[in-house]
Amino acid sequence: MTEIIREGDLLLLLAPGGYTYLLPAQDRPFHTHRDVVNLGVFLGKPWGSKALGQRGQPFYALKPTLHDHLMKVHRATQIIYPKEIGLVLLKLDIQAGKTVLECGTGSGALTLALAAAVGPEGRVITYEKEARFREVARRNLARVGLLERVIFREEARGGFEEKEAVDALFLDVREPWELLPGAWKALKGGAPFGALVPTVNQVSRLLEALYAWPFVGLEVQEVLERFYKVNPERLRPEDRMVAHTGYLIFARKVLEK
Amino acid sequence: MTEIIREGDLLLLLAPGGYTYLLPAQDRPFHTHRDVVNLGVFLGKPWGSKALGQRGQPFYALKPTLHDHLMKVHRATQIIYPKEIGLVLLKLDIQAGKTVLECGTGSGALTLALAAAVGPEGRVITYEKEARFREVARRNLARVGLLERVIFREEARGGFEEKEAVDALFLDVREPWELLPGAWKALKGGAPFGALVPTVNQVSRLLEALYAWPFVGLEVQEVLERFYKVNPERLRPEDRMVAHTGYLIFARKVLEK
Amino acid sequence: MTEIIREGDLLLLLAPGGYTYLLPAQDRPFHTHRDVVNLGVFLGKPWGSKALGQRGQPFYALKPTLHDHLMKVHRATQIIYPKEIGLVLLKLDIQAGKTVLECGTGSGALTLALAAAVGPEGRVITYEKEARFREVARRNLARVGLLERVIFREEARGGFEEKEAVDALFLDVREPWELLPGAWKALKGGAPFGALVPTVNQVSRLLEALYAWPFVGLEVQEVLERFYKVNPERLRPEDRMVAHTGYLIFARKVLEK
Amino acid sequence: MTEIIREGDLLLLLAPGGYTYLLPAQDRPFHTHRDVVNLGVFLGKPWGSKALGQRGQPFYALKPTLHDHLMKVHRATQIIYPKEIGLVLLKLDIQAGKTVLECGTGSGALTLALAAAVGPEGRVITYEKEARFREVARRNLARVGLLERVIFREEARGGFEEKEAVDALFLDVREPWELLPGAWKALKGGAPFGALVPTVNQVSRLLEALYAWPFVGLEVQEVLERFYKVNPERLRPEDRMVAHTGYLIFARKVLEK
Repeated sequence: MTEIIREGDLLLLLAPGGYTYLLPAQDRPFHTHRDVVNLGVFLGKPWGSKALGQRGQPFYALKPTLHDHLMKVHRATQIIYPKEIGLVLLKLDIQAGKTVLECGTGSGALTLALAAAVGPEGRVITYEKEARFREVARRNLARVGLLERVIFREEARGGFEEKEAVDALFLDVREPWELLPGAWKALKGGAPFGALVPTVNQVSRLLEALYAWPFVGLEVQEVLERFYKVNPERLRPEDRMVAHTGYLIFARKVLEK
Repeated sequence: MTEIIREGDLLLLLAPGGYTYLLPAQDRPFHTHRDVVNLGVFLGKPWGSKALGQRGQPFYALKPTLHDHLMKVHRATQIIYPKEIGLVLLKLDIQAGKTVLECGTGSGALTLALAAAVGPEGRVITYEKEARFREVARRNLARVGLLERVIFREEARGGFEEKEAVDALFLDVREPWELLPGAWKALKGGAPFGALVPTVNQVSRLLEALYAWPFVGLEVQEVLERFYKVNPERLRPEDRMVAHTGYLIFARKVLEK
Repeated sequence: MTEIIREGDLLLLLAPGGYTYLLPAQDRPFHTHRDVVNLGVFLGKPWGSKALGQRGQPFYALKPTLHDHLMKVHRATQIIYPKEIGLVLLKLDIQAGKTVLECGTGSGALTLALAAAVGPEGRVITYEKEARFREVARRNLARVGLLERVIFREEARGGFEEKEAVDALFLDVREPWELLPGAWKALKGGAPFGALVPTVNQVSRLLEALYAWPFVGLEVQEVLERFYKVNPERLRPEDRMVAHTGYLIFARKVLEK
Repeated sequence: MTEIIREGDLLLLLAPGGYTYLLPAQDRPFHTHRDVVNLGVFLGKPWGSKALGQRGQPFYALKPTLHDHLMKVHRATQIIYPKEIGLVLLKLDIQAGKTVLECGTGSGALTLALAAAVGPEGRVITYEKEARFREVARRNLARVGLLERVIFREEARGGFEEKEAVDALFLDVREPWELLPGAWKALKGGAPFGALVPTVNQVSRLLEALYAWPFVGLEVQEVLERFYKVNPERLRPEDRMVAHTGYLIFARKVLEK
């Protein structure tokens, strides 16, 4: 019944000091600045096992979650973070069997979350004009075994190939307003639209474009995460936090205004 | 190809002024304080259609998203909001086929999101001691057609029935520290644990309990949403915001400390 | 030595339920929704005294602070709040003997704080084109005995009368960029400039204007206050908070760019 | 009329890249990593003057504000920041001629702001048990010429020397609840009390102590500052921000509960 760690399994190594590493389980030493552990010691052991390093410090082998994978993607670009991704999945109603269009693959963090959520019957169509980003995203998806749910496309300027065909659409590009006619055409009636932009000027321009097309239910929001030091006797927020990643814009396509 | 609204379909009616209502499509008049529309007008029309009310104001029929369903659950208790739910789904790695244990069903908002994410092959086991809350949650799940993925249980004080059997576990109860031994036993090795509590005193007590058991990777955080008025020429945050719903605590079960 | 409450003194009445009222001490009954107290009972008593209402509930007579006065000004307009005012006083270096120019008196909340800080030797010159706002502001200043430190002026469009004469300058108007040439001329060399605007569009336009004139050290910020429920055993933030009042912009005049 | 920079004046040098330095005006070269300027070039020139460095980059000589002084104090301890100080001055009604007691001088940042606000007729009595902190605070006050308004005391455990004598009192110590009896005795009737503590556990303990003594009007709050990048065409918040300095607690002394 208990699941065992096998050679080649991706494991999240929790190392002394709280550092984490996403690594394949195999017989080789792994060095951190505090201690060294042979990863082979975990082979054949159950998930959640502990091993002591050479200096006696504890290491733990955890099964990586989707959140872990998102935080450990190879980054060729600024990525979208779980605090935004979680909300996007709910707002865009990403569920098993859906077809989702994303433009601006970047490193593929959101792509990965979308691919996980649409399941084996669903599809993610992702547009990215930079070949090197597509390559990084492919690598990130392949590592988690989700590459086959994703269709890569290169060009979006002339509009998207899909017509009234996608259940949800998300734009993570510099000038999302340029793609809005294509986005409207690609979406099914009543389907949710989302976008992420870093500046308020972009928010204003995208809102103007959304008002000019048959979109309704416009929303703009930020999501902020504030972490606490985990000392029960001296509980307090961390000294610093991420103050900004981007503004999320949501809307719904309607057939006429 | 275009999907049509049929009698009995749940629709999200977007009414004048931006108000939304979750209603079954059927031939009956629906009154808002601004206008009245007959819902029957949408039958046989595609999703995203517009209809004018008697006073000429536009109504739109949208297909409800999971986010819409979460915001429209019948509430017998304080509910967990999408800003937290989205993150919980990622942190707890809720995916198709998983078995998840939740304690403190309440109105079933999180239950609904968990049930949607585990898919038809997954299971949500939810504990709630108050019969009236179980009833409300059942109703909320049935409305979305997800009731059959959920197993209801009544008593948790003596520990959970499940032993090393669940892929993730979430506590939304007043004294989560009381349930921690049972939570540890129920979880598979290395699996993620989560909890939500409203006060800092509860955070401290739960952290103490987590330190006393083989849990690692402890995290405490808040998620804040800040909405903007959607006027591109006078873009600014809303005047007021929700300042607090609760503190999220996450950890991972390990086999020994 | 102990200071006594005398007839006509403004007192801050702390009433049952935590409500506060700014009232002159005099022999008359004062009704709240919970109880009634005769304010005359405080005459001749020291500050901080307690009196019981007819139903036995406690009322306290406190000497009003500047903060109390700011929160209790008669409001004809949106006011600037203490969270911003405190920072403005420090950033604009408002100290005894200074001459400060403000444009956009509004209800006079900031005017009041500036007048308190410049002391009897200082001066606040405040521009307001609406006669009814000037009247409200005069009343608010007179109540606190600070009217004589303030010079009211009506027109600012053609520039300010003062030339290289003010130690600090603050704009709280709809189009502060229009007044920037006049602001630059009015300020002494190296002196601090501040402004408050509610929208990001205004921030952008004001920044553009500041870059076009000899101003340096530009800063834009928001100040947020988060209040907690004062229950030591169930400590948690209030459910809702003020999410936005305005953006503060600061700069320093230099003689050339 | 125009004020001239004289030898020995403290000036705030605004250097290329936005860096600032608080320095005495004198004939000597000053090096930054971008350029070098001789400070003597500013002598005899008006405030707000510009000088070019050897590599042609602009330097500006600004008259330091109280805010500049607060940000540039020599730090032997964690300091209280202007975002909190501004509010404390308003809540504690620190005005010309007042007598204020502070316990926990630290580096003297708040002491400096209090001393500036009470004017030449006011007094700040500050308690600090660590001799080296008193020395740092004395140095910071002397630099701004405010030392003579401040009385230093060493011991507070046995209570404060002052009895019903101070107009306001602020605690910035590890265990403020220990000092509460003394604080109550030192304050005049109805006078404002304030404290700053970094952890929620301390907030809870201080609230308990405040409830046990005749204090009313209890408040707990945080003040957060969010800065923006000052690019009008790409306006957005800074990527990171200070998430926590401390919790502010306020109350009013009354004569009986």
